[in-house]
Amino acid sequence: MTIPTKASIQRAHERIAPYIHRSPIMSSEQINKMMGCSIFFKCENFQKVGAFKSRGAVNAVFSLSDQQLKNGVCTHSSGNHAQALARAARLKNIPAYIVMPENAPKVKVNAVRDYEGIIHFCAPSLQAREHTLAKLIIETNATEIHPYDNYKIIEGQATTAKEIIEDLENIDFIISPVGGGGLLAGTALANYFFGTNAKVIAAEPKNADDAFRSFHAGYIIPSENPNTIADGLLTSVGERNFPIIQQYVSTILTTEENTIKKAMHLIWERMKIIVEPSAAVPLAVIMENRKYFHNKRIAIILSGGNVDLESIDTLFLKSKNS
Amino acid sequence: MTIPTKASIQRAHERIAPYIHRSPIMSSEQINKMMGCSIFFKCENFQKVGAFKSRGAVNAVFSLSDQQLKNGVCTHSSGNHAQALARAARLKNIPAYIVMPENAPKVKVNAVRDYEGIIHFCAPSLQAREHTLAKLIIETNATEIHPYDNYKIIEGQATTAKEIIEDLENIDFIISPVGGGGLLAGTALANYFFGTNAKVIAAEPKNADDAFRSFHAGYIIPSENPNTIADGLLTSVGERNFPIIQQYVSTILTTEENTIKKAMHLIWERMKIIVEPSAAVPLAVIMENRKYFHNKRIAIILSGGNVDLESIDTLFLKSKNS
Repeated sequence: MTIPTKASIQRAHERIAPYIHRSPIMSSEQINKMMGCSIFFKCENFQKVGAFKSRGAVNAVFSLSDQQLKNGVCTHSSGNHAQALARAARLKNIPAYIVMPENAPKVKVNAVRDYEGIIHFCAPSLQAREHTLAKLIIETNATEIHPYDNYKIIEGQATTAKEIIEDLENIDFIISPVGGGGLLAGTALANYFFGTNAKVIAAEPKNADDAFRSFHAGYIIPSENPNTIADGLLTSVGERNFPIIQQYVSTILTTEENTIKKAMHLIWERMKIIVEPSAAVPLAVIMENRKYFHNKRIAIILSGGNVDLESIDTLFLKSKNS
Repeated sequence: MTIPTKASIQRAHERIAPYIHRSPIMSSEQINKMMGCSIFFKCENFQKVGAFKSRGAVNAVFSLSDQQLKNGVCTHSSGNHAQALARAARLKNIPAYIVMPENAPKVKVNAVRDYEGIIHFCAPSLQAREHTLAKLIIETNATEIHPYDNYKIIEGQATTAKEIIEDLENIDFIISPVGGGGLLAGTALANYFFGTNAKVIAAEPKNADDAFRSFHAGYIIPSENPNTIADGLLTSVGERNFPIIQQYVSTILTTEENTIKKAMHLIWERMKIIVEPSAAVPLAVIMENRKYFHNKRIAIILSGGNVDLESIDTLFLKSKNS
């Protein structure tokens, strides 16, 4: 596998198109008025399995050779990638082995099972996870599909920004949240290959700002004890992702936890759509940098909508009063 | 004002088109699979002010004579109609006097004020409300725009189903929630004038089943102590609405409170959109009558998305555990 090219992203888009939604782009006059700019929300919360992760997973699975397909795929993930990979594997009728920590939320475990993913539980530590996955690969010969540190994943996620560029004119900025950097690297490449004048900005919680620090240091600084409501953005930036981000991302802006909560509340209340906390981070970044974005035309990737509704009160409502 | 005709609904649609959204129609493969039928959700939760009420309010205000416009409009409502009327009046730059009970939720009061509605508070009783409105009309000579018992309102709400009929083929049923009957009467008329073979079904909470009882009795039986989570459906069916409903509605199905909560949860969780409890009543009716709707193609009107997010835990989460 090599770094995605213009042609390979184009092919990826054709490859995955039958299996993903071309997600809608929504706007809110009220939010635009409040923020003093024009925001276009790319609604990947409406994507298959409720997140952009479907794009990369389908692209990775559908790019495998027949021999690879035979042995199935595997990954460690307790998040949206786990569901997305299980779904992509089912589309090809191959096994998906998912390593998850024993303490993963039941709702996530069930979602993977709904897509017939084969779950291998492990202790909730990085070491246990890697050990379990390594053992699994030896036993099954399955191909590992890393959640973000994988060029086929990056290529698939790049189709999100490609659609934005096709659907919108004269965009000044595209803002993507950054965790491991799969979506961000893909967005940056798509903008480089297909875009005109837009700059790509990454949005990151201040309490999990490894990408920000790595970006400025010039080398990867791993995430240490991240503590943010944006639970999709806890991981460190990947090795394949970082050089792409360094080269093609304009800047990384960080935001406070309270602003993330306010941004999420605003999206739910004004747009009547459900987004997960990670998806609200780009709007939070605009809220904290209004002058910078004043009168600009900005595309935001709403990365996903998978919230455990039973825990909204702890996630969201109680925090609102704090 | 006379009962809406095919031509008058057509004109209403042209009249309001610049000021409302043509709301999207969404589907969920997962919900279809669970329910055993094909459901098309007409998303009026994405409508201006977050509810279909915008259609009727704009139609009513924009149908007034210049003399009537001069004196402004008035109504009593603590719900979506209040916001919708205030917004429609502001579009015409005329005053909107809104009579609201003193105990109306602050979020609703603020929403009306955001649209520059002039609020007159009254004691929380029908008598006080009517007295306050009558006094207001004498003082201002404003035209009363009743929330549902008004042909121009019915005509405006009819455009929702007109859009459904234009956008979807071979629909077996259109299900609308029923409170006062503005949306339902409009839906029934639009289906009669523009539809082909679809039947219109009304969905009503069992705990506020005055429309159901009236429909079967053949005369209006007022709502008595209704007690439902679907707070948009508490009112009795209107005098202008009832004969239309009797003539053009196929049947009225009622549903339990718990099913309404489950339906609302399902829509939030699977579709990633926010709907108010009243909007979930049609899906609840399908959930309780799966055999009847098996393999059918059904359009559901998601009437609105105005939920007080601060009270989700009482509205929704706690009830889930009950």
